[in-house]
Amino acid sequence: MARDKVCVVIGAGDATGGAIARRFAREGYTAVVTRRTVDKLKHLVAEIAQEGGKVHPFGSDARDEEQVAKLFREIETEIGDVEVFVFNIGGNVRFDIRDTTSRVYRKVWEMTAFAGFLTAREAAKVMVPRGQGTMLFTGATASLRGGAQFHNLAVGKFGLRALAQSMAREFQPVGIHVAHVAIDGQIRADRPGSRESERGADALLNPEAIAETYYQLHRQSRSAWSLEVDLRPWVEKF
Amino acid sequence: MARDKVCVVIGAGDATGGAIARRFAREGYTAVVTRRTVDKLKHLVAEIAQEGGKVHPFGSDARDEEQVAKLFREIETEIGDVEVFVFNIGGNVRFDIRDTTSRVYRKVWEMTAFAGFLTAREAAKVMVPRGQGTMLFTGATASLRGGAQFHNLAVGKFGLRALAQSMAREFQPVGIHVAHVAIDGQIRADRPGSRESERGADALLNPEAIAETYYQLHRQSRSAWSLEVDLRPWVEKF
Amino acid sequence: MARDKVCVVIGAGDATGGAIARRFAREGYTAVVTRRTVDKLKHLVAEIAQEGGKVHPFGSDARDEEQVAKLFREIETEIGDVEVFVFNIGGNVRFDIRDTTSRVYRKVWEMTAFAGFLTAREAAKVMVPRGQGTMLFTGATASLRGGAQFHNLAVGKFGLRALAQSMAREFQPVGIHVAHVAIDGQIRADRPGSRESERGADALLNPEAIAETYYQLHRQSRSAWSLEVDLRPWVEKF
Amino acid sequence: MARDKVCVVIGAGDATGGAIARRFAREGYTAVVTRRTVDKLKHLVAEIAQEGGKVHPFGSDARDEEQVAKLFREIETEIGDVEVFVFNIGGNVRFDIRDTTSRVYRKVWEMTAFAGFLTAREAAKVMVPRGQGTMLFTGATASLRGGAQFHNLAVGKFGLRALAQSMAREFQPVGIHVAHVAIDGQIRADRPGSRESERGADALLNPEAIAETYYQLHRQSRSAWSLEVDLRPWVEKF
Repeated sequence: MARDKVCVVIGAGDATGGAIARRFAREGYTAVVTRRTVDKLKHLVAEIAQEGGKVHPFGSDARDEEQVAKLFREIETEIGDVEVFVFNIGGNVRFDIRDTTSRVYRKVWEMTAFAGFLTAREAAKVMVPRGQGTMLFTGATASLRGGAQFHNLAVGKFGLRALAQSMAREFQPVGIHVAHVAIDGQIRADRPGSRESERGADALLNPEAIAETYYQLHRQSRSAWSLEVDLRPWVEKF
Repeated sequence: MARDKVCVVIGAGDATGGAIARRFAREGYTAVVTRRTVDKLKHLVAEIAQEGGKVHPFGSDARDEEQVAKLFREIETEIGDVEVFVFNIGGNVRFDIRDTTSRVYRKVWEMTAFAGFLTAREAAKVMVPRGQGTMLFTGATASLRGGAQFHNLAVGKFGLRALAQSMAREFQPVGIHVAHVAIDGQIRADRPGSRESERGADALLNPEAIAETYYQLHRQSRSAWSLEVDLRPWVEKF
Repeated sequence: MARDKVCVVIGAGDATGGAIARRFAREGYTAVVTRRTVDKLKHLVAEIAQEGGKVHPFGSDARDEEQVAKLFREIETEIGDVEVFVFNIGGNVRFDIRDTTSRVYRKVWEMTAFAGFLTAREAAKVMVPRGQGTMLFTGATASLRGGAQFHNLAVGKFGLRALAQSMAREFQPVGIHVAHVAIDGQIRADRPGSRESERGADALLNPEAIAETYYQLHRQSRSAWSLEVDLRPWVEKF
Repeated sequence: MARDKVCVVIGAGDATGGAIARRFAREGYTAVVTRRTVDKLKHLVAEIAQEGGKVHPFGSDARDEEQVAKLFREIETEIGDVEVFVFNIGGNVRFDIRDTTSRVYRKVWEMTAFAGFLTAREAAKVMVPRGQGTMLFTGATASLRGGAQFHNLAVGKFGLRALAQSMAREFQPVGIHVAHVAIDGQIRADRPGSRESERGADALLNPEAIAETYYQLHRQSRSAWSLEVDLRPWVEKF
């Protein structure tokens, strides 16, 4: 019997991660959604199930090597083949340099470039022998520009982009598509923001629209793969 | 009666331009395909017609201001509303700097950044009052890197990317999506190349796959538009 | 008898070009300063002469192939060896895309990427056989970012940067240093600006300070050459 | 009595760090040179002393917050005012992604973007109240490009560049110059390399030439500061 195809979304706690999981579930992928606390995934799991999708929530700390190894082992043993890997953990904080503790600086990096490495490495271990798969990394404005007071996030997000580039050069020639999406703007959460009321709901990034681009990246033929893609709302200044 | 929606492809003479025109025609757009000599469009016109698509060929020199104005006037008067604009003229030549004549240098620029401006400006004139449309520019490796002996193309392609960025910043807030696609690799023509025979047909960029990304860019919700996208085959070194 | 070493500044009409010519003259280079109208160079020539420097003004249109060839022929025949070449012509205008005439668009390109090519090509013809020399290109914010309404300048300045990159890759291995300086901010002219009065004279780019960086680029050992350098005032937002 | 002006070089263990320390010592700065093991600084200290320079070696682990705080406290209390800060720790290793342990990945980051943060933050604490100083970060090819097997270094070096950008935007408006130097090529060590024998000694980056650019960056007037500079040998392919 053919094994299930899995789309694993690391950091499915926010609107973007949830929308990506739902998008792939709608196409028949089994969504594996993770965040540190499994309870907070209840709503998303119910949504996907209600739409007829298959979904498995995991409470798993992406910064913990053993938990990550266990997560991928359980997925591959009990659920199916990881075909799509999405890394979506953020970590936005604002501090002056002189007020930044080493604890915060390290923690934001662990949530971004370190957790991204630990989880992508495990995904690579199962994808490379099969010679196929897609790895998608969520970037931000801070992936491309180190802004004042945004050094914590920028150091992690620049690092994550470096990781995506290195993985693309190592893995694309064995058949695995790697892409980095720089989301340049504010994402629309459930509650309306001030800009929305002025310029309409689509003045902020719609998570469903972001998810559509992730899905289309996965669908690309390997004869024409994108590595770096940006996304911003039509009204965004940049 | 609703007017036809037009996708105009400036420089539909090569494999990529042809595939883009076919892709949009398949979705119900009326394809307007141009190149300098209308005769050379016969094959493409037949292909689109055979697939049941609507298509109008124009012999039009994109470097000639009057011809370009006339082209858009005729499209809007006789065919329909330009909703998608694709600029796809290349201009690859190789010379040492000291062997480059001013004639060649100017000509390659006229085929790229100048023709791109003339045609995109006319497209903007009809799109802006309607507050919608998509403008897609075909870039290349030379859009991002000035290689030795590639200065002619790089000067034009860097310029075209500058134009796309400026137009995005001017037109996106009025509802027109602008995107630049940097195609980084060799495109598969009809005859098989040496790399193809070694690594399979998809070792070169497939025009159909490129066209799919152009179509998906057009489909993006305005809440999450891409401006810069790259495309390369899985086996490409970069 | 040893021939004079020449630093030729194409576009020495503004504060920056003048300061660069003075800086090299102070180091013993014979300054050749050009602009379209030779009369407007009188003040600069007097300044350099007063400081004890050697200087030759030329009225020469850098967009005119024959005038450019004649300029370099005369320098090499009558003055000395071109060792330093500086291209410093600007071309700032602001227009909406739809209000931009093809005449203006072409003219700004001719002042930037075209004149840059014509003059640098002639410089290369005399430098390459000698296996030494420095070529310095003046860039701007618009060399790296296509802003709304700045498309004319951006198309030309992106192109000039492409040219510098291509020339670096072609000429550095034969011993000619090529560098591009992106000047990101407003340059201080003679009359005080509003920001100056608020934040002090150095809130704007000082032409003397710019010139110092050009001179230091020329001085770099060929074991460690810079290709791309940015310059902005300490108070600049970016 | 005027306090000594200090140039502190974090990671003065290699040829580049040593050359930078010597360059500033020659201009009258008191060089403070650090590496993990103080013994390995003996040769450098002797060289600087022999040239008549003032130098203080410190064994200090730049990844250790307390040691870093102590280092800057001792410099400011016992030696002088930190006017120039140079961060020069590398961390080159090559691994496939799947063979990369989390220990190595974390360690290379700690040596680059983490140590860079800890030391630059302490430097900022003393520079900001004085409203002057220069902070120079040593980058590499891997600061701009994530190569296959170079992910460890690239994640750290991209991060260090992000940090430099963020610090420039935070600190330049209070008078502190921040610059990042991307060294793109192999640096000449004491023993001749194979390329040297073929193309001459300057086919590799000369540490003295690198140091000269660091010194000239420090000398720049605040009206025209560079943030990002690249350096490569004349024969380098890129």
